[in-house]
Amino acid sequence: MKQVRVGIVGFGTVGRATADIIAKHSELIQRRSGVKLLVTAVCRRQAIKTADVPHGARSLTSWKELLASDDVDVVVETMGGVDHSLQLLRGALEHGKPVVTANKKLLAEHGDELFALAVSHNLPIGFEASVAGGIPILRVIQESTAGDRLRALHGILNGTSNYILTQMENRGIDFDEALSEAQKAGYAEADPTFDIDGQDARDKLCILARMAFGGRLAVERIPTYGIRQIRAVDIRSAQRLKRTIRLVASAEQTDSGLDVSVRPWLVDRRSMLAKVEDVNNAVFLVGDRLGTQMFYGRGAGGDATGAAVVSDLVEIARDLAAGRLSAKNVVGFLDHQELTIAREPRPVGWYLRLTVHDQPGIIARVAEVLASNGMNIDSVQQEPHSPKERLSLFFTVEPVSEPKVRGALEIINAFDFMVEPVLLLRIE
Amino acid sequence: MKQVRVGIVGFGTVGRATADIIAKHSELIQRRSGVKLLVTAVCRRQAIKTADVPHGARSLTSWKELLASDDVDVVVETMGGVDHSLQLLRGALEHGKPVVTANKKLLAEHGDELFALAVSHNLPIGFEASVAGGIPILRVIQESTAGDRLRALHGILNGTSNYILTQMENRGIDFDEALSEAQKAGYAEADPTFDIDGQDARDKLCILARMAFGGRLAVERIPTYGIRQIRAVDIRSAQRLKRTIRLVASAEQTDSGLDVSVRPWLVDRRSMLAKVEDVNNAVFLVGDRLGTQMFYGRGAGGDATGAAVVSDLVEIARDLAAGRLSAKNVVGFLDHQELTIAREPRPVGWYLRLTVHDQPGIIARVAEVLASNGMNIDSVQQEPHSPKERLSLFFTVEPVSEPKVRGALEIINAFDFMVEPVLLLRIE
Repeated sequence: MKQVRVGIVGFGTVGRATADIIAKHSELIQRRSGVKLLVTAVCRRQAIKTADVPHGARSLTSWKELLASDDVDVVVETMGGVDHSLQLLRGALEHGKPVVTANKKLLAEHGDELFALAVSHNLPIGFEASVAGGIPILRVIQESTAGDRLRALHGILNGTSNYILTQMENRGIDFDEALSEAQKAGYAEADPTFDIDGQDARDKLCILARMAFGGRLAVERIPTYGIRQIRAVDIRSAQRLKRTIRLVASAEQTDSGLDVSVRPWLVDRRSMLAKVEDVNNAVFLVGDRLGTQMFYGRGAGGDATGAAVVSDLVEIARDLAAGRLSAKNVVGFLDHQELTIAREPRPVGWYLRLTVHDQPGIIARVAEVLASNGMNIDSVQQEPHSPKERLSLFFTVEPVSEPKVRGALEIINAFDFMVEPVLLLRIE
Repeated sequence: MKQVRVGIVGFGTVGRATADIIAKHSELIQRRSGVKLLVTAVCRRQAIKTADVPHGARSLTSWKELLASDDVDVVVETMGGVDHSLQLLRGALEHGKPVVTANKKLLAEHGDELFALAVSHNLPIGFEASVAGGIPILRVIQESTAGDRLRALHGILNGTSNYILTQMENRGIDFDEALSEAQKAGYAEADPTFDIDGQDARDKLCILARMAFGGRLAVERIPTYGIRQIRAVDIRSAQRLKRTIRLVASAEQTDSGLDVSVRPWLVDRRSMLAKVEDVNNAVFLVGDRLGTQMFYGRGAGGDATGAAVVSDLVEIARDLAAGRLSAKNVVGFLDHQELTIAREPRPVGWYLRLTVHDQPGIIARVAEVLASNGMNIDSVQQEPHSPKERLSLFFTVEPVSEPKVRGALEIINAFDFMVEPVLLLRIE
C-alpha cells in the first residue's frame, strides 16, 4: 500500500476535522483510492495541545518549517487570511508539493498567480473546499459541464447570513438578536462583517463565475450588498407577499455581458431557494442543454469542509501514487480573457422599503418619482401599527433594470420625510 | 490541437444529441479540454437519413463494422437493450477502445463483467449518462465522497413516472389519462412497463447503491413497486394529508444491512422531494460528515443525456491525448464483497388504500387486523361521494417495519368486501 504524507497548516476547525477524517476513515480511503493517507505534521502559530496532535504527527509552530520538511508530500492550507497563505502556497508549489486549500479569499484575489504557478510546476491545487463546503460544485463545473454551455448560475453561498435570515423568519426576531444568537451558536464570527455584508459570498461567486464562464473577473467589480439592513418588518412584509428573503449570489450571461451581483432577493416561499434553510448552501446552474440543475448541502462547518479537503487529498494522493500528478486546466483562471460586466442588467422586479416620518402625500410623491423613472408599481403596503415617526412603507415594482431603480432611489432618499435610506431587494 | 475520433452506435435521440453537442460546442470543448472531438462514424440498424449524418462522418448499419474501423478512437453506445450492447462493449474493450454508455440496464446486469474487462485492458468506461441524465451524480459519488462514509441515498430516478404523478396532481386526472398524455408528449414509450413499474429506477438504484456502499448487489434483489395502481383518489387523499406522491428509489444502511427498495412514497408537500416536478430527477445523499446533500436536474431527454455523454467523452479524450488513459476503480463493481440486504427494514409510516364494496363493520374488521399485527392507526378517511360498490378507504399507520404490514395485507386482501388488493405507500 502506497503512503502519502500530509502536512496541515492552520489547525482550527477545518484542519482538525481534516486530520480526524483521515484517521477515522483510513480504511475507506484506502479502499476507494488504493492509497494510505498519513498526517505527518500539523502547524499552528500557537502551540497545539498534545492531545489534539494526530497520532504519529509532529506539531510545529512555523509553516516555513513544515514546508521544508522531508516527510510532507502534500500541503493542506486551512489557516485562512491572505498574506501568509499566499506565501505558503507559493512556497509549497516552488518546493514541488501539491496543495489543497479551503481559502476562497486567497483564490478570489490571487487565483491567477497561483494557478499559473501551479501550471509552471505541473502541480495541482485542490480547492473544492473553498466554495460551498461539502457541495462538490467546483468539480461539477470543471468536469461535468464540459459538454454544455452555462448561461447562468445563482446560489446561497454564505451559511451565516442564511442562518440569520432563517432565524428571523422562523422566530420573528430582529437582525441584531439573530446575529447575536448566530454568534453564540458558533455560526458567526465575533466580527461578522465578512459574512453579513456579502464579501464571503462575493469571493465564492467570483470563483464560480470565472470557472463557469471562463475568464478573469476582479472580485471588486462584483456589486455586493449584505443583509445588515434587513429588519423584522421586511420579513413580515415578505410573508404577506408569500415570499421570504435570501442572500443570493448570481451571475447571468446577457447580450451586453455578465450580470453579476450579491444581494438579498425576495423569493417565492414555495421555491427551492426558500427551502434552503439554516447554514445550508445551494447552487443552481442553468445550461443550454442541461437545463436547470441544483446542488444542495452543508456550506460550512469543520466536517463538511474537512470532507471536501479530504476528497481533494484522495484525488491528489491517487495521482501521486500512480506517478501521474499534473496541473489542472482550471477554466477561467488560466485564460487572459476578461469577463465583460453587463452595461444593462436584465430587468427584474424590485421591493423597496421606505422608513418615513409620516405626513400626508408621501405615497403620491414616491409614486411620482417611480413613474417618472419608468417604473410601474405592483403593490403598496404599510406596516400595521408602526409609529408615525418611523413608519415602514413597502413598494413592489414591475421588472426594470437596476440603473433606473438607483436613479429613483437617489431622489427618494433626499426627501425630508425619509428617516433612513431605502432598502432595496430584488424580486425573483 | 489533438483530435479524438468518436464512433456513435445507436443513432436515436441521445446519439443524435451527442453528435449535435460535439458539433455545436466544438470550440468550448477545445478550450476546456485542449482536444478536438470529431464524430467519424455513426451506426444504426436502419440506414440514417443523409441529412442527419454528422458532417464528415460515415454512416454504417453494422456496429461490428464500426468496431473494426481504424478511424474510431472512442465508442459511444446509445442503442439500449442488453444483448447487442454487451457484445459491443466487450468488443470495443478487446479492440483497446474506451467506451461511453448511457445504458443502465446493461450495467445493472453486466457491470461486474464489463468493469473487470475494462480493468484487464486498462481502459475507462464512461457511464455518467446511465443514471439521472444530466445530474453528475456518479462522479459525485465516485470522487467527492471519498472523504466521507455514506449512510443513505434516495431519489427520484424515473422522469416518466414523475411526469405522470405531477400531471395527476396538477390536473386532477387519472393514471391512464396521464400516461397517454405522457406518451403523446414523448415522455413515455409505447410500452411504458419499464418506467412505470419501477424497473428503470431499480436499475439506476442498483448502480448508485453499489457505488455508494461498495459491493455487489443483484438487481433482482431490490424490492420494486411502480405507480400503475395509483389513482386520482390517492392523489386527493394525499392532498388532504398535505402530501403528494413520488416514486422513490432508496437505499439505507441499517444495523442488519441495506434497506433498499423502489416504491411510491407519500411525501410532505413542502419537502424538496415534492418540489421535483415533471421529468426532473433528484438524488439525496446522506453522509456522516457531509450531512444531507441534494442534486437536482433533468433526468432524461436527448440534450441532458447527450451532455452527460459528452462530459465523459471530454474526460477520456483529455486522458487519451495526454497518453494517460487508464481504467477507473469503479467502487462497488470491482469488489467481490456482497451487500447484505437488511432482514429487518427500519420502521416507517404507511398509507393503505382499500377499495371495498361497502357494508357495515369494515373499518372495525380492518382495524382489528392492523391492531393484531402490531400497527397503530394514525388516521382513517373515506373518499367523499364514492359509490357504495367501489368505496375508497384510506388508513395511515404509525411507523412499523414492512413484514408486519405485509402480514396484515395478506389477511385484509382475503376479505370478501375487498374489490381489489390494498395499495400500499410508504410515508416519509
